Amino acid sequence: MSRFRDEIGEQPQVASRMLASGGPNIDSIAARIRRAQPRGFVIAARGSSDHAALYAKYLFGRRNRTLVSLAAPSLFTHYASPPRLEGQCVIGISQSGSAPDVIAVIEEAVRQRALTLVFTNDAESKLAKVADMVIPLEAGAEQSVPASKTYTASLLALAMLSQAIDPQPTFETALALVPRALEEALTREVELDLLVPPFAGPRAIVLGRGFNLSTAEEIALKLTETSYVLARAWSVADFEHGPIAVVESGLPILLVGGGGPTGSDLDGIAQRLAGYGCRVTGIFDGQPGRLRPDAMVSIDSGLPEELTPLTLVVLGQLLALRVALARGLDPDRPRSLHKVTRTW
Amino acid sequence: MSRFRDEIGEQPQVASRMLASGGPNIDSIAARIRRAQPRGFVIAARGSSDHAALYAKYLFGRRNRTLVSLAAPSLFTHYASPPRLEGQCVIGISQSGSAPDVIAVIEEAVRQRALTLVFTNDAESKLAKVADMVIPLEAGAEQSVPASKTYTASLLALAMLSQAIDPQPTFETALALVPRALEEALTREVELDLLVPPFAGPRAIVLGRGFNLSTAEEIALKLTETSYVLARAWSVADFEHGPIAVVESGLPILLVGGGGPTGSDLDGIAQRLAGYGCRVTGIFDGQPGRLRPDAMVSIDSGLPEELTPLTLVVLGQLLALRVALARGLDPDRPRSLHKVTRTW
Repeated sequence: MSRFRDEIGEQPQVASRMLASGGPNIDSIAARIRRAQPRGFVIAARGSSDHAALYAKYLFGRRNRTLVSLAAPSLFTHYASPPRLEGQCVIGISQSGSAPDVIAVIEEAVRQRALTLVFTNDAESKLAKVADMVIPLEAGAEQSVPASKTYTASLLALAMLSQAIDPQPTFETALALVPRALEEALTREVELDLLVPPFAGPRAIVLGRGFNLSTAEEIALKLTETSYVLARAWSVADFEHGPIAVVESGLPILLVGGGGPTGSDLDGIAQRLAGYGCRVTGIFDGQPGRLRPDAMVSIDSGLPEELTPLTLVVLGQLLALRVALARGLDPDRPRSLHKVTRTW
Repeated sequence: MSRFRDEIGEQPQVASRMLASGGPNIDSIAARIRRAQPRGFVIAARGSSDHAALYAKYLFGRRNRTLVSLAAPSLFTHYASPPRLEGQCVIGISQSGSAPDVIAVIEEAVRQRALTLVFTNDAESKLAKVADMVIPLEAGAEQSVPASKTYTASLLALAMLSQAIDPQPTFETALALVPRALEEALTREVELDLLVPPFAGPRAIVLGRGFNLSTAEEIALKLTETSYVLARAWSVADFEHGPIAVVESGLPILLVGGGGPTGSDLDGIAQRLAGYGCRVTGIFDGQPGRLRPDAMVSIDSGLPEELTPLTLVVLGQLLALRVALARGLDPDRPRSLHKVTRTW
């Protein structure tokens, strides 16, 4: 077994811990944000954390009607006179808390007297020290290079913050279901081997939309990191604006769907891609896609679409793991990579 | 010859026309934006226009210190209660002016009484009718499916708007150089054949950073659309956070550099990738990369880094064209595509 697999397996416990103990801190941060009435959120992050930021864009946009801007870190590290941030709540997400470019954005936000908040798995990190407010992920040390439990911990902490800012009883009930839903996703590990064969080649496409565009991006990164498949994610809509020209018979395409109003987009593209002879597979939570039963793994966690990025990414992590093992690769140690990447 | 090639060749004249006649309209729009003192810009776009939006994020962030948020259209088309837009200047970019999802964002902005502005090549389009203000691209009909002249016209119009909001004499001088700089890029068509051979395979990576991240994205799309290479762009920094694991001997990687403070990032990654045996090529304006002379095409247009996305994308368009021709493909008519894609 690998550390990557071990850490994938820890996700239900990490989620339980966050739900049990993270609440009071997140509630007081939410109260401070509500008092400040920020104009919007600006989020700085890299790699998997940047996909958590993309999730936050949809989550805060939809649930809190708050505009989210993803920061372009080089505007803070490479160019003079970064954007004005007054009135914003500026958020950094970094597993290690030592990403120099994320720290640079938060430092500039402090200089401009914007409210600052960081999500990190190291509450003693430099990033945590710089910011006004910290949400510790408390996921335990993550030793595998590809992130897993710190990713879902970030998503859950973001969802708890969204709920604390704009409470809603049904969403509260749904949050409590997350650990069990993650357990359910873990039971599908062997079944996911059904979807492995198409990913033997050099390239793959992952499609999502809305809340699960972030999941598609994260799964594409996991496949790229652990299996050396050049996997590219698109929203279904962007894909139809040009990139669809790349499809041809046999090309592996993974759909990621969590039900909700974007479900019909996925069904539509599935049909179109099957017509081109692509090897279309899918992972779904809630509403299964219109694919042959042996071309998809589908669960029904009972979570609303807004929370299905948690379960679906677990299925995607397991798929990436199984693809790596089928290719004889060690998922813990992707070539050319270290756990902490210090870009500026 | 193809229409794509014809339209690539028209870009200097389109730029001259925009500079000669677009000014008064853009000046009056800039005056209206300055009076409104928006909190930030929100931009909705798809496909190539979304890459123009990414350019705008760096341009307005750097030159105007304005925070730019790229809209997630599905929050407006698929989910109830879109983000609050009050105090924002909401911008739509669409060649055809008939992209339903871009129209939906502008309509919602109008409903919320935000200031609205669109860039479009059809001043009679629905999008143009919905918005408060219109900047016509006046590029003439674009008949090739892959966009070329409407892309550079969008970039130039954005740069003129940035300048009209915050005038600077040196930038004014630089804008006037654009048509000649585009002419210079066009003269390198045959030389670009040097870079074609690595792109014979199924996949490729395009790297940029800062202002030319947008160029890297647009060139990756051009390669994907016209040559069916699955090309993926990353910022050098994001690439080092995981995806770099995918590199292996022989993998084609194109660097896109316009000088300025990000130049050393490109030099650093070029050296690292050469060590892995990748086939590293590059296109540069101003400061050439540290590559063998026969692995790059380099011009020196005299433009500041902020305007090199105009020249560099022309080199990238020509490269995509030459790759398509070398593969025996018709660049005007990518399979599975129509000129106007109506996603919702």
